This record gives sequence, structure tokens and C-alpha cells, in this order.
Amino acid sequence: MRLSDKNIARSFPALITRQTAPDNLEFPFPSLDSFLTPNEQFFVRTHFEVPDLDASRWRLKVEGAVARPFDLGYQELVRMPARTTTALLECSGNSRVFLKPTELGIRWEQGAVGTAHWTGVPLVDILDRALLKPEAIEVILEGSDKGGFHPPHPKTPGVISYARSLPLDKAKQSDVLVAYQMNGEELSAEHGCPVRAVVPGWYGMASVKWLKRILVVDRPFRGFFQTFEYSTWLRQGGLPDLVPVTEIEVKAQIARPALNEVVPADANYRVFGAAWTGNGEVTTVEVSTDGGENWTRATLLDHSVRYAWRFWEHCWHTPAKAGRYTILARATDDQARTQPMERDEDRRDAVINHVQRIVVLVR
Amino acid sequence: MRLSDKNIARSFPALITRQTAPDNLEFPFPSLDSFLTPNEQFFVRTHFEVPDLDASRWRLKVEGAVARPFDLGYQELVRMPARTTTALLECSGNSRVFLKPTELGIRWEQGAVGTAHWTGVPLVDILDRALLKPEAIEVILEGSDKGGFHPPHPKTPGVISYARSLPLDKAKQSDVLVAYQMNGEELSAEHGCPVRAVVPGWYGMASVKWLKRILVVDRPFRGFFQTFEYSTWLRQGGLPDLVPVTEIEVKAQIARPALNEVVPADANYRVFGAAWTGNGEVTTVEVSTDGGENWTRATLLDHSVRYAWRFWEHCWHTPAKAGRYTILARATDDQARTQPMERDEDRRDAVINHVQRIVVLVR
Repeated sequence: MRLSDKNIARSFPALITRQTAPDNLEFPFPSLDSFLTPNEQFFVRTHFEVPDLDASRWRLKVEGAVARPFDLGYQELVRMPARTTTALLECSGNSRVFLKPTELGIRWEQGAVGTAHWTGVPLVDILDRALLKPEAIEVILEGSDKGGFHPPHPKTPGVISYARSLPLDKAKQSDVLVAYQMNGEELSAEHGCPVRAVVPGWYGMASVKWLKRILVVDRPFRGFFQTFEYSTWLRQGGLPDLVPVTEIEVKAQIARPALNEVVPADANYRVFGAAWTGNGEVTTVEVSTDGGENWTRATLLDHSVRYAWRFWEHCWHTPAKAGRYTILARATDDQARTQPMERDEDRRDAVINHVQRIVVLVR
Repeated sequence: MRLSDKNIARSFPALITRQTAPDNLEFPFPSLDSFLTPNEQFFVRTHFEVPDLDASRWRLKVEGAVARPFDLGYQELVRMPARTTTALLECSGNSRVFLKPTELGIRWEQGAVGTAHWTGVPLVDILDRALLKPEAIEVILEGSDKGGFHPPHPKTPGVISYARSLPLDKAKQSDVLVAYQMNGEELSAEHGCPVRAVVPGWYGMASVKWLKRILVVDRPFRGFFQTFEYSTWLRQGGLPDLVPVTEIEVKAQIARPALNEVVPADANYRVFGAAWTGNGEVTTVEVSTDGGENWTRATLLDHSVRYAWRFWEHCWHTPAKAGRYTILARATDDQARTQPMERDEDRRDAVINHVQRIVVLVR
């Protein structure tokens, strides 16, 4: 007897494994179809082994340049006034596989990105309770995940925790959360169980998982994950100056057709994708189906949600002539920021938002 | 006919070659005998190929956060009021060969250090002429030497100039020079011809050679040579924080006996060396000839010269019994800073001033 489709339970396309030990798993972006990414399909970025934490024993320390240091447990946190924020998280290395020349780091294609509802307590409420001292300028978020590094980093500081800082103005935005739910469910182990930060508008490295400490400091933090990792070069008078990666850059991605997809000749094809920006709203997506010579406005779907992606579509009448064709999409936001056509090499391995070239085969 | 000693011209011991292309050459420290290091014996630290510059065509640009940007030539510089500063320069990687576990970088023994008279124009006079704007906080010194990097640096900014910044308070110290003479001679190509910076009290990386531009900036500079290179980790609440290498740490070095020297048993041996500190005066050098159990004060020789080394000696009556013995020296300065016995691993590949163990063979 042959199994028919209806006898088989529907399953999601599997995450693409980019690394094991520690796990780094990618959402198969060509399968994009829902505004909220299912928890099981949300990309996983880990730097060290996933900590095995028990919510009933978890404590969060709040200390440093504060008048009233304190710590709190999980039950105390969930009894505080909660807020739900919708936010896209994108790894700052997303699309690294498109870089020429290649850079070190995980070779993400397009799927190190996802959107979820996040529920938790505004970070600012916790900071207010600790009473910041006047000299406070940054807030370091420290995770429970830790480990050492091997080459290629010649100057690693031994065994360290994952940690990242926010300047005070960002830390005080009410949609920055100390979160314990993702799409209405408790956080799974790989997404930060029991508690993580969620920093809307910034690349994912700021949304520290397995949060264990909030350390308020009076001088700028230059930790490993904002110098050796998750940093780019900016120029001061022509000289490269190392700056931490922060806000998400405007970007459109094509979900369908996928890279190297075979599409029928002389037919209508629905080009479909998502677009987003860090702090603002996507106002335009343009599509080119001839390698960048001519551009047409795509149709933006649904309504815009701050800090989330917005889907778009474009009807492409495919060429009659078989061959390779290059499809591009380019987003612009309400602050007139648009995607560059070429890669800025000073960004090295991070913040990859130049227009991507999706080559397809027309048959 | 056999050559007798008096028929042969005296020569200096050769510099030890640590690297060619680019040249990195070390003073053979066991030959130490003069307060001023002869120019030909002064250690050479280069990051890129030595620039071939012509003083008659050289220009220095002064720009950035200044009200009156200008540039000047060599003749104009040498006609300005000059000052001579005596200063020791030590590479922040000096003694790297003693590190366990080993670190990447040039394996200097003890000779990436030297003392010279430097003549030039105080940097502050040049800054005054440019009229700093109120927002100025750092001064970047840029050299004419430039190039690219290969692994092991995964995140290098392409082809860059050598550049280093000074905070304004250091830049304004009157003994910080834009120098054109070394021990009364014009600078040789490898020491920065025609003009270099000399920053007394700081490790050598601040004394930028082949100076071509002084760029005043209004935010802290995080260039390659003060983040990926020439930096150490400091802890903020236990978390490693990347800070640039700056001031020279207190240190005594033993010139004689040399490491693995064979010394006669049951005899008087003159242990001899030099000691220095960054901003202060060496007040004590102690010597141990039994691996660190007992310590005796060494005799400080001559008088103390700020920013220079001071020689010291200690008469050691060597053991009657043949074997391996470990000699140590430890300096303390007038701010009660003393050398640590053990290496602080957070310093990684730089700032190496823990007490060195000189093992000798008594026969």
C-alpha cells in the first residue's frame, strides 16, 4: 500500500544546519509564508553550548552604577506588568554567503531572520527599580552562556560570558524587553529559556539570551562581542575606526524565486519576499528582473508594523527565451535610507544589506 | 698570516633578526653597556615596508577638529623652537618569548627596548598653532607606512596606514615631540625619516614613525592598532573590556647573566641590568638568585632620568655546587607600583612586565 499525502502529518521544512556544537540553524527563507515565524522555525544563533537552566532557580542580578542593586527570580519577573512587542530579529551576519571575497564566520544564506511576538517586562522598569546613578552611560546585558575561543581570534580573553551593551537611551526605550515568552509560549532552551533580552530595531546580537545579569557601567564597554565580533569599520578622516554593530539596516529579501530556482518560460511568476528596516518604516520595494537595468515598484502587502518585516510581491512575466536571469529587490525606508548596490568592504563580515543577486534558470 | 685583534675594527654586536619583510630587529640585551643606545643598535619595529621619504618633499598635515588646519614642510619644522627629550622606547611586546602559553606576535626576547635623546618640536606647539576646537578629545598620529593584513586577523580593514591616537592631556605634555633627530643625528629610514612622534612614558607603538598627518578628532578613536593590535583586556564587573595599550609598566631586566649563560661556581659575578617605569621614577630594584625565595636590594647606578632607564648592579657570589639556578629582578617605582610575579593573562600578547626568570648554568 502506498502512503497518500493525507495519511502523512504535515511538517515544516527543516532548519538548515550551518553548524553543530554549538548549533547554528537557519530558517529556509524560500518557505516564507507567515508574518510570525513559528518558534520551531526561528533561526538559532548560539556562540557556546546552550545552558541548561531551571526557571525556578534562575535569578537576574541588577548591579553596577545603580543606587539600589537587587536581584529577582522568575516568578517575581512574570508578576511585573508585562508588555508584548512585535520584533524582527536578524543576525548581523545574515546573507554572508553572498559576500565576495568571502569572510570568516557562519555562512548564512537568507534565513538568519525571523519575526515574533515577544512578551516580557520593559528593561526600563527594571532599571528604574535599581535607580541609575548619574554617571551611568551604558547597560551591559550578560548571558549564562560562556566558553573559550580558538583561532582565528589571536587575542581572545579566555573563557567569557556572552555579553553586549546598550547605550542608556536605547536601554530606556519601553519596547526593549526582558522577555520570557515568544509567540505566547515559554522560551525554548535554544531561544533563551527562561529569560532573554529583546532589543527591537537592533541586530540580533543585542538580544542577549539566557540573561543572568544587568550591569550598569560608567564608561563605554568594549567587550569581545562588540569589538572582535559584531563590529564594523567606520572611517574617521579616512582611518578605519572600529564601531559596534547596532541598528538593523534597511533590506529587502526575495523568498521566491530561490537562488538557482528553475522557473517556467513565458509565464506569470509571483516574486515574493519581505522587507524591513531598523528604526523606521519601509516605504518602497523595487524589483528588477533584468539584472538591475530596469526597476518596478513591488506591491507592499498588509500594513506596516514597526520593528517587523513587511511582505511584498511583484508579478513577473518570465522571458520567452530560456537562460539565466538575475532578479533583484531593493527597499527604501521613510528616512530615505536605501540599500546600496555594492558591498561596503569596511563592514567586513557583518551588516550585509547590499542588494542581493538572485540568479534563476528560465526553462 | 693570522689577523690579530688590533687589526680588526671594533663592531657592535648585530641586531637579532626577528622578522624580515618587514624588518623587526632586536637589540642584543646582554650587550647593554651605555645609557644611550647607539642608533645602529636601537631596536626596529615595523608593521609594513619602510617608506622611502624625501625630507625636501615631506609635508605634515594638521587637520580635523581645529579652527586653522595647515600643513608644513621639513624646513619650517626645524626652524621652530626645538626641544630635546630623553626617552626610553619599549615595544609593548618586548619579552613575549617568555610567555607561557605562547601568544601570536613577534617573539621578542629582552631587546625591544632602547633609550635615546630625541630632538624636535613639542606636539603641543603644533596643536596650538592649529587652534583646537572645544570638542577635540583625541589626536590621531598617522604614519606614511601602510599595507594590508593576512590571517590571523579575521576582520582587517583592508589597506591601512599605521595610526595611533593620544588623549588630549597626553598630547599636550610638552615632552611629546614631533621629532627629527635621534641622538643628534637625522632619523634613519627605519627610525622614521624624516619625522616621527616620540611619546615618552608610553609603549613604543604610540611613537608613530614617518609622521604624515595629525588628525584631531571629537570621538575616541578605535583604530586597528589600538583594538586588534596593541590592546589588552581590562575587567568591568568581571567582563573583559578591550582597552588600548598606553603607559609603560614598571620593569627590571637582567642583561647579564644572559638566559642560559654558563657562569663559574664559587665566584663573584656582577649581575647587571636596567630598570624603568612609564610615568615616575624607579626607586628599588631587588634581586633574587635562588628562584624567588630571598631578595636583596640591588645598587641603583648613576642618577634617575625621567622617562629613561636606570642601570643597576648586584654582586652575586655564585654557588659552589654546579647546577641550574634562577635569577630574578624586580623593580618598584615611586608610586609603589611593583612588578607582578605572575603573568596577567588578560594582557594576552602585550604589556609584559611580570618578573622574568633567567636560568643560568653554574659550572
